[in-house]
Amino acid sequence: MLGAKSPEASVYLSNRGNSIRQQQGILQAGFAHYGANRYDIDNPNGVINLGTSENKLCYDLLHKRLTRSDMLHVDPALLQYGDWRGHTFLREAVAEFLTHYCHSPKLLKADNVVVMNGCSALFSCIAAVICDPKDAILIPSPFYGAITEDVQLYSDVKLFHAPLESEDGNEDGRLFHLTVSKLEEAMQRAKQEGVNIRAIILVNPHNPLAEIYTPNEMLSFLQFAKRNEIHAIIDEVYMLTVFDESVTFHSVLSLESLPDPQRTHIMWGLSKDFAMAGNRIGTLYTENQDLVEALTKLGSFHGVTGTSQHQVAQLLQDREWISKEFLPENRRRLKAAHRYLTDELQTMDIHYLDSSATLYVWADFRKFLRSPSFEEELYMWRCFLKHNVVLSCGQAFSCCTPGWFRIVFADQQDHLQLGLKRIREALKEIKESSTNRDFFIVKEASEESERPVNEDSAPSDNATIENSTSSPQSKSSDQLKEKACSVLDTSSLGPDELVLLDCQAAKPAESLDTLIGTLKHQIRSSDWLEKNTPERSAGEDPEILDVFQTLLAQARK
Amino acid sequence: MLGAKSPEASVYLSNRGNSIRQQQGILQAGFAHYGANRYDIDNPNGVINLGTSENKLCYDLLHKRLTRSDMLHVDPALLQYGDWRGHTFLREAVAEFLTHYCHSPKLLKADNVVVMNGCSALFSCIAAVICDPKDAILIPSPFYGAITEDVQLYSDVKLFHAPLESEDGNEDGRLFHLTVSKLEEAMQRAKQEGVNIRAIILVNPHNPLAEIYTPNEMLSFLQFAKRNEIHAIIDEVYMLTVFDESVTFHSVLSLESLPDPQRTHIMWGLSKDFAMAGNRIGTLYTENQDLVEALTKLGSFHGVTGTSQHQVAQLLQDREWISKEFLPENRRRLKAAHRYLTDELQTMDIHYLDSSATLYVWADFRKFLRSPSFEEELYMWRCFLKHNVVLSCGQAFSCCTPGWFRIVFADQQDHLQLGLKRIREALKEIKESSTNRDFFIVKEASEESERPVNEDSAPSDNATIENSTSSPQSKSSDQLKEKACSVLDTSSLGPDELVLLDCQAAKPAESLDTLIGTLKHQIRSSDWLEKNTPERSAGEDPEILDVFQTLLAQARK
Repeated sequence: MLGAKSPEASVYLSNRGNSIRQQQGILQAGFAHYGANRYDIDNPNGVINLGTSENKLCYDLLHKRLTRSDMLHVDPALLQYGDWRGHTFLREAVAEFLTHYCHSPKLLKADNVVVMNGCSALFSCIAAVICDPKDAILIPSPFYGAITEDVQLYSDVKLFHAPLESEDGNEDGRLFHLTVSKLEEAMQRAKQEGVNIRAIILVNPHNPLAEIYTPNEMLSFLQFAKRNEIHAIIDEVYMLTVFDESVTFHSVLSLESLPDPQRTHIMWGLSKDFAMAGNRIGTLYTENQDLVEALTKLGSFHGVTGTSQHQVAQLLQDREWISKEFLPENRRRLKAAHRYLTDELQTMDIHYLDSSATLYVWADFRKFLRSPSFEEELYMWRCFLKHNVVLSCGQAFSCCTPGWFRIVFADQQDHLQLGLKRIREALKEIKESSTNRDFFIVKEASEESERPVNEDSAPSDNATIENSTSSPQSKSSDQLKEKACSVLDTSSLGPDELVLLDCQAAKPAESLDTLIGTLKHQIRSSDWLEKNTPERSAGEDPEILDVFQTLLAQARK
Repeated sequence: MLGAKSPEASVYLSNRGNSIRQQQGILQAGFAHYGANRYDIDNPNGVINLGTSENKLCYDLLHKRLTRSDMLHVDPALLQYGDWRGHTFLREAVAEFLTHYCHSPKLLKADNVVVMNGCSALFSCIAAVICDPKDAILIPSPFYGAITEDVQLYSDVKLFHAPLESEDGNEDGRLFHLTVSKLEEAMQRAKQEGVNIRAIILVNPHNPLAEIYTPNEMLSFLQFAKRNEIHAIIDEVYMLTVFDESVTFHSVLSLESLPDPQRTHIMWGLSKDFAMAGNRIGTLYTENQDLVEALTKLGSFHGVTGTSQHQVAQLLQDREWISKEFLPENRRRLKAAHRYLTDELQTMDIHYLDSSATLYVWADFRKFLRSPSFEEELYMWRCFLKHNVVLSCGQAFSCCTPGWFRIVFADQQDHLQLGLKRIREALKEIKESSTNRDFFIVKEASEESERPVNEDSAPSDNATIENSTSSPQSKSSDQLKEKACSVLDTSSLGPDELVLLDCQAAKPAESLDTLIGTLKHQIRSSDWLEKNTPERSAGEDPEILDVFQTLLAQARK
């Protein structure tokens, strides 16, 4: 995306700045939709968010702990400049915490800990210092989509996907199964394409699959990394979300020895395991002091307020509270919520990947697609949005099989209940629309690629969908699939496409986030608003009024 | 610096990563020295830090306010993902705060506020979105040196200096006087050199000069920016530190109208005005929504914990406390400390720029230099360090006249007293060493540039001092001065130079920070420590033992 020009570029921003501004993924678009109109008792038509991975089940427990008097501590050292790796007391607390909860065979050291304001910051920094611009990091797909921006926006590093197919079942019947040979294949392809792979990212428990990899599997992946002399970045941010007592998660830090300790770096944070995404703390454990030193130099951009560091250290040191109060109750609630959701999915005859951890379920909506394409998947996502429920569709995770959705269950039961009701209604509408495709229309991908975006406008380069930077493997043989995956590249869309919203003409490649961006631009820079009122649009097509108004409300923000 | 190769590069890092890791400025080196061995009652030989701009006078006031019960507030919204611009309640509080304390003629809007974890983060982000890699930002020098890294490390943007000479007095006798013609000259030079200037950074009250620019002056600078169609980034982070009742600071936000509002962006934070550098909060006020949107996309790397946001909002809204308790008392203490320091400087017959704001004084040590060069200035800085007092020398601020130092006075009087005692001792030693240059030796800059760093080693590229990336104007005619300014470029130093520490052979270009870095590397990767003990070095030259041991202690960390 960097360096790309766009007709809607701001004159005040650089090329890079315009590219950054135009970046908008599906996960972010879903969250923005929710942020603008949240459901609560006073806003019963507000959006239910089953798309963003947050644990909303433990605010009472957290409130009780975080308002204890030990949290309100201020001393001069906390108000002064500190160590950019994090205060020593916090790094010690993190090392002790990880030693205990990761079952490390040896005492982990504070000097190997770097604390920053979140795992996004850590991904960005690590990409900056182990990669040069245009280098790439290998990642099995599907994967948590925001990592794409984490390594790209500042650091200009690409993710190179090792695609897992839903059909990739192993002997145990696990779908989307990751194997070393999948990784080797991707590595081979990268070499052929001249892509310089510097690292692999592995998320365990997995996001969005919720799969837990065994120690032997992780070991084989680490050995793969060692053979290829690439770094292994292990994201274990869901390690304490295992809610089934019969299942054990094994951290990489529990291994007797790491195949390549200088190239193995373990990330963890409080956002998921401690149900506080708003607490910006990410931690890295690495024995590589060169890496620690390099990260420290970037630390001034990612510092955490001293008093917050104190609070986190207090929390991590309170093993009594963690092990005896928080974790058991959190697990109990997660298990119940998971059970509720999966029971409902079974009633709806929707298959999902069985799992015992994380905050979400990876569910198979393929049979509801009117045709197996990412355009149809996006149509379904938008239809959920229209029914005021946010889910995260597979393409937000670069999944290669259309029709999978991630559903977050770590929310109050009445929210889940209402969310599921809305999902049912949306699916009903989709089913009915199979015979009437006038609204939220779809053309086949094969047709689309040859046509201008807006039939009234002349064909132009802008109408061509390209995704050359965000998907290195777009050069691979699987071109049709890639094209489908790239429908959200907003940089290729010009202001002309806005008319699509007005007349709801067919354009499968159009996405909500694109529309929001374009709308904002138009509203600020033209008389478009005067000429295109919701009422007038509604007059032309009454059904779209409420979706349209939601978009406008967001665009005006 | 990006892309530069170095013989001590880590095999685990990319070229960019190695460059980032090797980055170390004088300000950071001074702080590291202090961090490793802080002075307190139990450590009477610890380092007194008059080099880092922190206000250490108000911890009692802050403790009292920050431990009030309103600070201990937790609600679900604070624990969830928020708006990456900052929570609405905080942006509203910032807008109201700035409206009031900047005497804005109109109500400032929350939508024009972006909150990030510190002004470094803001500088980095702004550089990323208004500049492309290799673009430059104009800045009058001397200036707060860390801005160089802020815009360079992630964003690969250079600062282009508009140098102010100490002799540049205006009719009022103000030295280092900034005028529009100075800026125009620099702009002209940039054009000639093919440097693409995208913005100007202006710090008011100034760092390190402590000068306050008048509204008319600021207006003329803003008009200059408008004429040249460049952004103006106004850093007002010291705006509430004015301690002389007869002096008024005028924020750019108090102007009736801005010449180019879409290109004018005002930064402020809590670190200086509220005496809490450890509180990572920086704010930007800008009417440019394109910029706001672009910054928001980078917000996930620079987020602030929700509960911290709440605390800051509580503080900023408490006008009673700010205006009636904190500010009057803070001003009184700053004024007294300033008076104490300047009285002492007068006794020592050291001139300084008279000022009524900030936390430091810009003092003229030129007459103590044994010759007017930056090597001598660095020698003096190191001599202060040896006497366990950190000051910040002019070259850390890219000052073009050697011999100026920034002395921070916002510290307890006994610290100031001891610091000044040590300064006196250091100056005495320097005076005595004028006749004996065996220790901390200096060669003239003119000689140095033609010689290899270590006389025993063969000449190599690494011995050549270059600073092409960090000082765009290095190509200008003023080459000798630039060469002197660039002595701290650590990327050009190889491990061979380490022997300099051992034998203390002459090398003016050697700096403490370089030595620390090299030492750390050597200690970890060789048997150097066995072969080069402090004791053995001391045997060769007893005087260096304690400096050497300090360095080792830091390097072993």
